[in-house]
Amino acid sequence: MRPVVALLTDFGLRDHYAGTMKGVILGICPEATLVDISHEIPAHDVLAAALELAASYLYFPAGTIFLAVVDPGVGSSRRAVALEAGDYTFVAPDNGVLTMVCEAIAPRRIVELTDGRYARAAVSRTFEGRDRFAPAAAWLASGVDLAALGRPVAGLHAIEMPRPSVSADGIDGEVVRVDRFGNLVTNIDRKTVERLAGHELAVQIASRRVARVVSTYNDVAPGDLCALFGSSDHLEIAARGASAATELAAARGTAVHVGRGA
Amino acid sequence: MRPVVALLTDFGLRDHYAGTMKGVILGICPEATLVDISHEIPAHDVLAAALELAASYLYFPAGTIFLAVVDPGVGSSRRAVALEAGDYTFVAPDNGVLTMVCEAIAPRRIVELTDGRYARAAVSRTFEGRDRFAPAAAWLASGVDLAALGRPVAGLHAIEMPRPSVSADGIDGEVVRVDRFGNLVTNIDRKTVERLAGHELAVQIASRRVARVVSTYNDVAPGDLCALFGSSDHLEIAARGASAATELAAARGTAVHVGRGA
Amino acid sequence: MRPVVALLTDFGLRDHYAGTMKGVILGICPEATLVDISHEIPAHDVLAAALELAASYLYFPAGTIFLAVVDPGVGSSRRAVALEAGDYTFVAPDNGVLTMVCEAIAPRRIVELTDGRYARAAVSRTFEGRDRFAPAAAWLASGVDLAALGRPVAGLHAIEMPRPSVSADGIDGEVVRVDRFGNLVTNIDRKTVERLAGHELAVQIASRRVARVVSTYNDVAPGDLCALFGSSDHLEIAARGASAATELAAARGTAVHVGRGA
Repeated sequence: MRPVVALLTDFGLRDHYAGTMKGVILGICPEATLVDISHEIPAHDVLAAALELAASYLYFPAGTIFLAVVDPGVGSSRRAVALEAGDYTFVAPDNGVLTMVCEAIAPRRIVELTDGRYARAAVSRTFEGRDRFAPAAAWLASGVDLAALGRPVAGLHAIEMPRPSVSADGIDGEVVRVDRFGNLVTNIDRKTVERLAGHELAVQIASRRVARVVSTYNDVAPGDLCALFGSSDHLEIAARGASAATELAAARGTAVHVGRGA
Repeated sequence: MRPVVALLTDFGLRDHYAGTMKGVILGICPEATLVDISHEIPAHDVLAAALELAASYLYFPAGTIFLAVVDPGVGSSRRAVALEAGDYTFVAPDNGVLTMVCEAIAPRRIVELTDGRYARAAVSRTFEGRDRFAPAAAWLASGVDLAALGRPVAGLHAIEMPRPSVSADGIDGEVVRVDRFGNLVTNIDRKTVERLAGHELAVQIASRRVARVVSTYNDVAPGDLCALFGSSDHLEIAARGASAATELAAARGTAVHVGRGA
Repeated sequence: MRPVVALLTDFGLRDHYAGTMKGVILGICPEATLVDISHEIPAHDVLAAALELAASYLYFPAGTIFLAVVDPGVGSSRRAVALEAGDYTFVAPDNGVLTMVCEAIAPRRIVELTDGRYARAAVSRTFEGRDRFAPAAAWLASGVDLAALGRPVAGLHAIEMPRPSVSADGIDGEVVRVDRFGNLVTNIDRKTVERLAGHELAVQIASRRVARVVSTYNDVAPGDLCALFGSSDHLEIAARGASAATELAAARGTAVHVGRGA
């Protein structure tokens, strides 16, 4: 049995921080398999981390321990927590980074990381990832029960996730992630769009009408814009073989409207 | 026995995509050792991926499974394939990314990934890396025979690799890779240059004569340009302790001429 | 027993170089666990690598083998070495990258990597990371004794590390690392600062007075500058939720003064 610890941080890949956390984990749980989800979350961007985690965690094996350290409040009185939800365990600061996970699956148990036996002896107030979160994840990977890590917690701090609104006029949403290819992932999921069933869909972004809702990028000509349901089943605006973000000068927060067409 | 799965993609390291593929692989084959060759291939750049793969695969242990997902045709009718060549197995879209591998070692067996048992139940048409390629690689790592993955395929789509030409005038080639240090790796291999044996070599690039063909960067003074055979035994233009790419304003495609000198 | 090999290079993550080294290591020692400290050390920057290594190695498990390849002298007559110090083993070019490690822990044994049995058969003069350093680290991970790798060496080449100076006027130091968040890590450690005990500390950088020495970023208002002892117990200038580097237009080498205040 080789437990998987999956890391998501805003530490970047230039500094030693992510590597140092891995050193700490392997010192406690040498048999852990470490996987990077991303270390390139924009600095201090809890919402971006919450979205990235939500898009990926379900594809990891049951038993995976997620270590999500995007922590603008490091060293402050914000809590450090661990929780079990579904087949997974999550270790993170209590700052909202687990909001989407908790909305999808109600946590069975939540604890605050208060037991010093499962942290490093001295906890830096600028790098709790190394001294508190990584050890907690590693001890969990080693088989320590969640309850041992600290006192039970009833609920977590949540952040407001951008949600689409539905009106007679259609759906109003926004871009929530821009990926490396310049694809614009929105907060409009397939279920919401199905409420417009029976109508042709008219997608608008940045005062441009996106001609077609298609199944795959290659349903349009090279360079052309399209809208489609991407890999996390949310509406996505893309340009075949090109960057829709550049083409539309769009970014996170850009409004997207799905109306009833002809 | 811990099978190695080596990943090469254009997914970048900011988004969760590479991490998600690893989650899928470990769910199927928990004992796999995962190695990143690169995830920073320029978006949709099949040729760059083919070159990067060709420069690295021979250094991996026998039995390694290479998962090469640079896939501008994702979701289209382009085939998804797996093949065995030499001591290795490759999983990739059939878009030419394996051209150099297949030129170097004739594949023993090639299959199209048609058997749904070795893909995820629902295959996204924008992220086959997660739903089709990663599972195929993981099942192969788990010991599934290549033939089980789908129907046999006779040959693959190849792309045109830039090749040097030899004339009475010398060798005309080009820069095919610019590395992080600004070294300019050309498509001119040592064997081709040996056809000019008995002559001093005169290397020209960007209308500059490169003074000397040397054995190692430190054979010239700091900052000076040199030409040498690099780690993949191809002619390379470098500047000691500096970037030849910057110095020469050279990029992929820049012409390089090797003439008979004095 | 799964030996840890921790890698620190300036190879970047775009090229295949780091991945190729890992392929070589796994071919020799399949049970190795590979951890990246960083591959984004600025090209040829031995001092930066020495600092990054010094900030991280103590957090790795006993027995870890560190493979530090920032090697502007690749292919030259500079030596390739391996050494044991404390609970760790280090493999690197003898160019000063291990200076801080050797200052902290006197090496027990040092050898030059002269025995060809523990290198690849052909050693490229532009990529000794692949052909000499990675194999040496892998053989050590496999249990080969350090002494087998080559002839004993008495001492190593050291580089001058920037050190703070203490005068009646206070402490004069400088910024030695700028991290991803724009935090400015100085070469002024806590012990040196304690020599000013009994005085309020007045920290100056880039002709700005940093208002307060605090315990954690959140002790000041958002955006405000502060000074604190960071995760490696050195004085650090930061801006809460923002980049002190941008705010102060500071970089490595920027002078920092700690004076006796009121």
